Amino acid sequence: MDFRIEDISPEEISRRLSVVEPLTESVRRLIDAVIRTEVDDAELIAATERIDQVVQTLRSRQRDGSFGTPYTPTFIGMPWGNAAVGARNAIAPPLQIRTESGVAECEMVLGAAYEGPGGCVHGGVAALMLDQLVGEAASTDGLPSFTGTLTVRYLRPTRLGALSARAEVTGREGRKTFVHATLSDDDGVTVEADAIMIAPKGFALPGGEVLPHPATAQEEN
Amino acid sequence: MDFRIEDISPEEISRRLSVVEPLTESVRRLIDAVIRTEVDDAELIAATERIDQVVQTLRSRQRDGSFGTPYTPTFIGMPWGNAAVGARNAIAPPLQIRTESGVAECEMVLGAAYEGPGGCVHGGVAALMLDQLVGEAASTDGLPSFTGTLTVRYLRPTRLGALSARAEVTGREGRKTFVHATLSDDDGVTVEADAIMIAPKGFALPGGEVLPHPATAQEEN
Repeated sequence: MDFRIEDISPEEISRRLSVVEPLTESVRRLIDAVIRTEVDDAELIAATERIDQVVQTLRSRQRDGSFGTPYTPTFIGMPWGNAAVGARNAIAPPLQIRTESGVAECEMVLGAAYEGPGGCVHGGVAALMLDQLVGEAASTDGLPSFTGTLTVRYLRPTRLGALSARAEVTGREGRKTFVHATLSDDDGVTVEADAIMIAPKGFALPGGEVLPHPATAQEEN
Repeated sequence: MDFRIEDISPEEISRRLSVVEPLTESVRRLIDAVIRTEVDDAELIAATERIDQVVQTLRSRQRDGSFGTPYTPTFIGMPWGNAAVGARNAIAPPLQIRTESGVAECEMVLGAAYEGPGGCVHGGVAALMLDQLVGEAASTDGLPSFTGTLTVRYLRPTRLGALSARAEVTGREGRKTFVHATLSDDDGVTVEADAIMIAPKGFALPGGEVLPHPATAQEEN
């Protein structure tokens, strides 16, 4: 996997986000509007041309490949391309996750773009959000970890709308971390998940001591 | 869950798709471009304004709520808002799934918008795609079914790019259908999943005979 260091200040991070977040929000509204619009064909065709023009401008200067996961030298992560939390990724709601030791929580509003069965959250979207959350709960001690196994149980359909999610570490065993997570609406839990997270071998020192952060094993793209 | 009947011909379906698919493709390119662009702030701000204008036009006439899952009276489904396969949903790649009895297969190209770890497919995105596939494999006999439990095992990281996926029914037991699925790159399987799918109770007649299709239990939105 690709890591890279980008040496910018917290102020520069905030400045960049202040420009790119409104753009991504605008694209999120566009995704929703394309699903729900009932304007006539001529307007749909005109919209296509206008969006193509914006794409052409944005592509006039762009990075090769995906955004990757840059970190500052002080280990501030910028996962802005991430499909669940990315500030530049319109697929992401984005989840705004709060973490404390072994726990990750967030609220989210999932609209028309996250639909599976009519009026309900796609089961796979629920899995996507919970996968992100279990990863963040398992990583709150600074040790990166990746999902080994994710078991998702759908207790009942989850209506589109305002939801909350929570993940909590329930145990550790060598390189494995066990995490339990839930997705809930106002009436309670709709989906629950259990994950076995794995810390990558590369991050444990020969003596068994664990390195603090993925950036220590950076590879240049 | 919401079902509705829309009485349109296959020709009208094709005509509508011929207009809306290019629009959705354009939005997919836009999502990718916003993640990868390196144009300056003034251009990002100008892009935001131009997209906002398109959104305003599209929203001048739109349906309330999500797209839902309309069917024709002859049971042709139009899940165009679906997060994995929706022709109008720019979050969906969209998966173009081929089905035969108990089997669902597709190829897909997952680009920058589907990233989790740097350069790799988000584990939750893999789960989303496999969840859709197991649902379609379980439903090839016309009986709708919803995911009860989905267990996803990540064998190794999945690089962004061209992938294939396959799901196959491995057994049935009352209302339960068991499905095994895999996501693969050129070197073989990267993620595997096992699902227990559940046919909704509402679709079984009192005598135990199962109704052929969700549209028979439609609710108006």
